[in-house]
Amino acid sequence: MKTKDRILLKSLALFNQDGERSITTNHIASALNMSPGNLYYHFRSKEEIIYEIFLMYERSMLNALTVPSDRVITYTDKMGYFEAIFNQLWEYRFLHRDLGHLLEESPRLRASYRQFAGKVMAQAYLVYNALRKAEFIKASEQDVQAMIVNIWIITTSWASFVVSSGFFGEEVVLSQRLLRRGIYQIICLEAPYLQGEALEKLPDLLKQYGDDSAKTV
Amino acid sequence: MKTKDRILLKSLALFNQDGERSITTNHIASALNMSPGNLYYHFRSKEEIIYEIFLMYERSMLNALTVPSDRVITYTDKMGYFEAIFNQLWEYRFLHRDLGHLLEESPRLRASYRQFAGKVMAQAYLVYNALRKAEFIKASEQDVQAMIVNIWIITTSWASFVVSSGFFGEEVVLSQRLLRRGIYQIICLEAPYLQGEALEKLPDLLKQYGDDSAKTV
Repeated sequence: MKTKDRILLKSLALFNQDGERSITTNHIASALNMSPGNLYYHFRSKEEIIYEIFLMYERSMLNALTVPSDRVITYTDKMGYFEAIFNQLWEYRFLHRDLGHLLEESPRLRASYRQFAGKVMAQAYLVYNALRKAEFIKASEQDVQAMIVNIWIITTSWASFVVSSGFFGEEVVLSQRLLRRGIYQIICLEAPYLQGEALEKLPDLLKQYGDDSAKTV
Repeated sequence: MKTKDRILLKSLALFNQDGERSITTNHIASALNMSPGNLYYHFRSKEEIIYEIFLMYERSMLNALTVPSDRVITYTDKMGYFEAIFNQLWEYRFLHRDLGHLLEESPRLRASYRQFAGKVMAQAYLVYNALRKAEFIKASEQDVQAMIVNIWIITTSWASFVVSSGFFGEEVVLSQRLLRRGIYQIICLEAPYLQGEALEKLPDLLKQYGDDSAKTV
């Protein structure tokens, strides 16, 4: 593996584990048995490392949201999107833990994040249009537009909700299981618009993604 | 007005205007033409000021969500809840701009915020049950539970979404108008469950709270 990639992966692991704020470039160099000078040869600042990690995140997220061009979208594709998105959220979980701060610190990350949000929502629009065409979803244009914004907010805010709300217990530690529980919330959001095979499979999905350990309101 | 309240109101105004992180107790004292010693006589730390402001926020939020005990809930009550909640979000907007950081810094705020989230969601549950009883809403128990969590997330994350997503333009400044646009997103979330008078009034509401300046996805 190239040194540059080794630095990015180790940084990502440390940021996820301890939070981005408590990790310095010195910590990263030391965890790699590397001199700070060598690290600075590859990245001039922590901001640059974070920006490169964001680009990795963006690539894998947009990649996960591709609509098949050679065939009709299937219901399995649809669930695959959620699985892929929440897996990416887990892999890059430090990004959304303190997003406001990261965006404040870096004007180019701020600009890129906005473009990314636009691209993901445009991609989601293509997915929902394909789902409408395949008659898995019956919804007006206005319904779809609002649903995409709501899904974006719930998805990107889910990690903060898990940690801050106490909904899953006191002082809970974010886990992949609790993160995935967010898929349940999205399924419920979409539920009123489902039809056909998607509607038939809904009860099973609700069972699969629901979590008995979750409180009721 | 008591000195204590003057300090709280001035702090709230400064936090909202410049962000909580850039305001120190010295800034607050100076803005009130008060000696730092006098301020410390009333509040031992900025954390204590923030905590007291949070308690004000909590009181007015829970107050806004009361279900009338002497009569059936009306559709006007229902819209009044959203108006009141988003007004509170505006009055105390610094709280949600950097919530993760505030909760990290203060264990007692963290504990109180979790209790608050639980209380608001329990109160929302009473409201939705009253709405079901009054036949404005037709939804299963599972629908209502999931909807309340989704509404909580969208409401508390809306300010961050406005600022970070670029959905309302580049480098947008949070305004009461853009904050209120969040009500539109909640109305769309509820729309599939409405019936009767609530369903009849839906098109007007969507027009009233929708915002032509908003991008489409």
